Amino acid sequence: MATTPGDEATVEFMLKRWKDPKTGLDNAWREDYKVYLSFPDKTNPNKVSVVDPENRVLFAAREREKAYKPEQDDPEVVQPFAAYSPAGNVKGELVYANQGKMSDFELLNRTLDLRGTIAITRYGGEGRSKKAINAAKFGVVGVLVYTDPYDINDGLVSESETYPHSWYLPPSGVERGSYNIDFGDLLTPYLAAKDDVYRRPKEDITGIPPIPAQPIGFDDAERLICELDGDDAPTEWQGSLNCTYKLGGPGFKPTSPLNNSNVHMDIYNTERLENSANVMGIIRGSVEPDRYVIYGNHRDSWVHGAIDPSSGTAVMLEITRVLGKMVKEGRWRPRRSIIFGSWGAEEFGLIGSAEYTEEYFSKLSERTVAYINVDISVFANATLRASASPAAQSVLFTASKQVNAPGTTTSVYENWIKYFNRTSPNGIIPNVGFLTGAGSDYAAFMHYLGITSMDISYYYDRSKTRARIYPAYHTAYDTFDYASTFIDPGFTSHQAVARTAGNVLVRLADSLLLPFNCSDYAESLERYLSQAVTSYEEKLANKRISMESLKKAVQLFRDTATKLDRLIGDSDLAKETPLKTRRINDQLMLLDRAFLDPLAFPEQYGFRHVIWASRSSSVPTFPGLADAVEKAESTDLKEDWDQAHKHLSIVTQAIAGAAHTLDDVI
Amino acid sequence: MATTPGDEATVEFMLKRWKDPKTGLDNAWREDYKVYLSFPDKTNPNKVSVVDPENRVLFAAREREKAYKPEQDDPEVVQPFAAYSPAGNVKGELVYANQGKMSDFELLNRTLDLRGTIAITRYGGEGRSKKAINAAKFGVVGVLVYTDPYDINDGLVSESETYPHSWYLPPSGVERGSYNIDFGDLLTPYLAAKDDVYRRPKEDITGIPPIPAQPIGFDDAERLICELDGDDAPTEWQGSLNCTYKLGGPGFKPTSPLNNSNVHMDIYNTERLENSANVMGIIRGSVEPDRYVIYGNHRDSWVHGAIDPSSGTAVMLEITRVLGKMVKEGRWRPRRSIIFGSWGAEEFGLIGSAEYTEEYFSKLSERTVAYINVDISVFANATLRASASPAAQSVLFTASKQVNAPGTTTSVYENWIKYFNRTSPNGIIPNVGFLTGAGSDYAAFMHYLGITSMDISYYYDRSKTRARIYPAYHTAYDTFDYASTFIDPGFTSHQAVARTAGNVLVRLADSLLLPFNCSDYAESLERYLSQAVTSYEEKLANKRISMESLKKAVQLFRDTATKLDRLIGDSDLAKETPLKTRRINDQLMLLDRAFLDPLAFPEQYGFRHVIWASRSSSVPTFPGLADAVEKAESTDLKEDWDQAHKHLSIVTQAIAGAAHTLDDVI
Repeated sequence: MATTPGDEATVEFMLKRWKDPKTGLDNAWREDYKVYLSFPDKTNPNKVSVVDPENRVLFAAREREKAYKPEQDDPEVVQPFAAYSPAGNVKGELVYANQGKMSDFELLNRTLDLRGTIAITRYGGEGRSKKAINAAKFGVVGVLVYTDPYDINDGLVSESETYPHSWYLPPSGVERGSYNIDFGDLLTPYLAAKDDVYRRPKEDITGIPPIPAQPIGFDDAERLICELDGDDAPTEWQGSLNCTYKLGGPGFKPTSPLNNSNVHMDIYNTERLENSANVMGIIRGSVEPDRYVIYGNHRDSWVHGAIDPSSGTAVMLEITRVLGKMVKEGRWRPRRSIIFGSWGAEEFGLIGSAEYTEEYFSKLSERTVAYINVDISVFANATLRASASPAAQSVLFTASKQVNAPGTTTSVYENWIKYFNRTSPNGIIPNVGFLTGAGSDYAAFMHYLGITSMDISYYYDRSKTRARIYPAYHTAYDTFDYASTFIDPGFTSHQAVARTAGNVLVRLADSLLLPFNCSDYAESLERYLSQAVTSYEEKLANKRISMESLKKAVQLFRDTATKLDRLIGDSDLAKETPLKTRRINDQLMLLDRAFLDPLAFPEQYGFRHVIWASRSSSVPTFPGLADAVEKAESTDLKEDWDQAHKHLSIVTQAIAGAAHTLDDVI
Repeated sequence: MATTPGDEATVEFMLKRWKDPKTGLDNAWREDYKVYLSFPDKTNPNKVSVVDPENRVLFAAREREKAYKPEQDDPEVVQPFAAYSPAGNVKGELVYANQGKMSDFELLNRTLDLRGTIAITRYGGEGRSKKAINAAKFGVVGVLVYTDPYDINDGLVSESETYPHSWYLPPSGVERGSYNIDFGDLLTPYLAAKDDVYRRPKEDITGIPPIPAQPIGFDDAERLICELDGDDAPTEWQGSLNCTYKLGGPGFKPTSPLNNSNVHMDIYNTERLENSANVMGIIRGSVEPDRYVIYGNHRDSWVHGAIDPSSGTAVMLEITRVLGKMVKEGRWRPRRSIIFGSWGAEEFGLIGSAEYTEEYFSKLSERTVAYINVDISVFANATLRASASPAAQSVLFTASKQVNAPGTTTSVYENWIKYFNRTSPNGIIPNVGFLTGAGSDYAAFMHYLGITSMDISYYYDRSKTRARIYPAYHTAYDTFDYASTFIDPGFTSHQAVARTAGNVLVRLADSLLLPFNCSDYAESLERYLSQAVTSYEEKLANKRISMESLKKAVQLFRDTATKLDRLIGDSDLAKETPLKTRRINDQLMLLDRAFLDPLAFPEQYGFRHVIWASRSSSVPTFPGLADAVEKAESTDLKEDWDQAHKHLSIVTQAIAGAAHTLDDVI
């Protein structure tokens, strides 16, 4: 876990590997930040209990997960907790609030007075901290969060069916996690968390729970939920616990031994400034040392973290070993520089990578070709999965065609297209996702700096499981035993990811012409435009707001992308002046940068990319426009329609501005 | 004046010149924006009068300036007005409020109830619109602004001593001007003012007068001020009108024929969306067409504008003629591309240049080497004057050493150093000013885009006059007759500016290595640091805020600048790979960009450059820090000291971040 002795040991391990004289990099070093973290109190564990009116404890939730292997008994296993949940001692009658969405609380609030209650919610459907933030708006005083077996175990609940008998989550397993919205160190927004930098008062932090929150296992959750009084919860709220879920009276049913009793939460989390390190390593470029391809993953975990993050760290270490060996033996040096980052404190909110981008903002913005993120490298061993800026789609395709899928003679690409695919103007292709969220360390690169980024992993066959994520995620069961027995026996999927991501990396670092495709970007914009026109054109026209300029901007982007593609196609760059290649490469490198607008989303920390910023609306289109139109529709206020018009203009100008960068340079 | 038939005629004129087959540029075109402008009503002129209680007009200010030459009689001469002053009909007793600074109104407010009064103020000491904004805070209902002969005429007041007998302002001369703070189109902040872009409601505009304002001549001002009742105004408030200035009773003295009468302002300004054009012209670069040197000046004036802006436009046209001829004859083509901009609607708030930078933000940010602004090219014929980013100091010196001062065999540089000089670590050098304000079209380039910019002109011998600016500025007397008779007979200073600015332009466009010096930048940062330490270190230490990190950042900048200089000195770039030169040039080109922080000054429109943003404090140092410390000192509130600490961290991170870009690239 970040900043523990274990973390420090991994720092030393990475440094040793990257400084190895035979297989290491050109240079490696650590960069330290003093960051604001939240921990449970080892000597005073968080407690969740049910107490009767005389304060007798009728039920107490587990304080640690059940041990099936020695790893769970390790004293360093941190108690399950909700990082950044405030400490506090709260008591109230229980209600069941489904996923803790605003709509969930609104529905409950129709029939129940939620003031003073404790809400139990299940993971999924809403961000961790938002469950508590939403709850507090209704007067709820504490929030419990558990993982429903429906969502994680395909409904299986018994110990005989879960780890160590399968990959499924044991009943006592608890997903830890950071309960915050904004990424980066919470006390130093937009400033690298150096020793004497300005730190805002902790009261000014937004996006963290205003009331105590605590995650628990589904065995404890079952005890609580199955005793609830009140109406049946709606069908969509039902899970796989062994009862019909009720809403709560609030509180427990008259026939329950818990009747008339309150749920009691004693949370003792404390926040501290701790030293967190990124480990950086480089291979100098031979021809364009001032162009960087960055490859990174976090190093910290919640517990052992065999999968999250070590499956990715293993891949990174293998790539650095292979490339480092070639460099050390004088057999190879990339055209461009490669920077490897082993980020610290990702689990607390992508902190290490965010601080790095804040400290080196200008240098990275000016010179970075791409960022490759491989965090959890293997969720499962069915297929490649990738999310990326559309500019990087083609290099992902090229690379994945050159690697065999684990244990087959089929390419990763051919295997991939079976699991994720879509129809494009060029036929059926693998469906590359968009990087619209902040799920891993690509966030600061993609959203804050506008660097073409990608996130690569091996993934499930979705027809075989509906697990939200691999079941041991963020629990004490995410161990080497779990990984090697259930996730990737033989580690062949790890190899496939290493080969694919390594192929992408080398192509980005070595190709004379950057392997980015601006026409693929045009196609994505056209998809978003088409969706926006379908969903919003009529509504906007009713308010006399025209989408014509947006259409023209997307058309201009398509035209200039075609023009640049033609220029590339008509050139034999190996024979022309290096400055011509550099010019085209700069156009490609800076394409994502052209979509940045630091003022477009004042309420979303670090989100500056007008196309890929996160979005509340479910319509897959330009996020600022979608969210603004939906708000305007709901209020029908003039100022909200004005905001919709403003966001339409912002995205129009961003797309037209990006198109200008693809056009003839003068 | 912007968007009038006269403006349209100059658009056609520029296009014709820049498309001339023998002396024109590679290409030229117009770019149009629909911008929000303010005009007086030709059929219903603004009126300033004194009316007695029975509403009889006892005095009426002139509605137009007196004609000494046919130019003043031209029906196209616009009535003097305060652009963006609201229309309104207000009446009140008169007070004299000096320059309309907050401190001026505070002083008045100690003895007078200002509510319902009209304030007369003189130009200078405070921005135009701020005079009215300040006044309104005290309940003042209207503001008159005049030019005191002390400030503009070295005290001379009589018609026999002013134009056409000298360069001084005639008694009826009135300085027009735009009464706003923010630059760019006021309805479309950060968005180019295209046809169907979102336009905010006019009520949301900030920085314009909340109460009617109107400029008048000093003949009319004398009549009003010299009749005032009340206490004597302080010595520093006295000007050169023929009386002792009083504060006002409020109102006029008992012995005055104006006693018991009110000043009446009838303002009929209206705002309209009008089409304003930039005229753009280019010379394509031969080797690095994707690197731009931009040279610009505005085209619009208030009246004839022989000096402002046509002295600069004449210089630009001569430069384009000379370079265009060489290009058309096939004798020369620059290494980099040159873009010329003839900006529209500068007088209303730098609108054309600001809209251009908004529309092409990404392209310009990525590729622009420098922006050269020559607006008023000749204020007077004594000496060169230049303000610039420190990176550009050396090229200004090199160029000015190669041009002779008008009518001499002394270089412009040798002449310059006699009038403006300072001691630097390298001895006495001409003192190049900093571009800390938004006085002309460099603002969007320097402050919004972080492009290394410079502003060049010929200027006064300050020992011979204390005129705030050349006296005919923004009046109907700024004519060819005035310019050729009094400002620059023989136009030799125009030639000197054309040669100097042209030399700078060609060096920027043609040098293999960009003629920027990062060590000069280090020296400027050291000057600012030294000033900050002297002024603030102890005060900050008292609040436990340390300046050590800032000192370290400046030292790091110095060290990395030295390192880059050494790399340049040790290289024979003509013999090395073009990519090495390009790499160093990119470091130099992007140096100013590295100081941008779009969130540092949320209340200052378009100011993103952390070092050169405008500053209220009189201490010449880092603006955010200076203003924040001074505010904190005045309130001693914790949150204000927090802001001071935050600004210290912002500037520290910006300088360290810029230093990283000068360091070894990997």
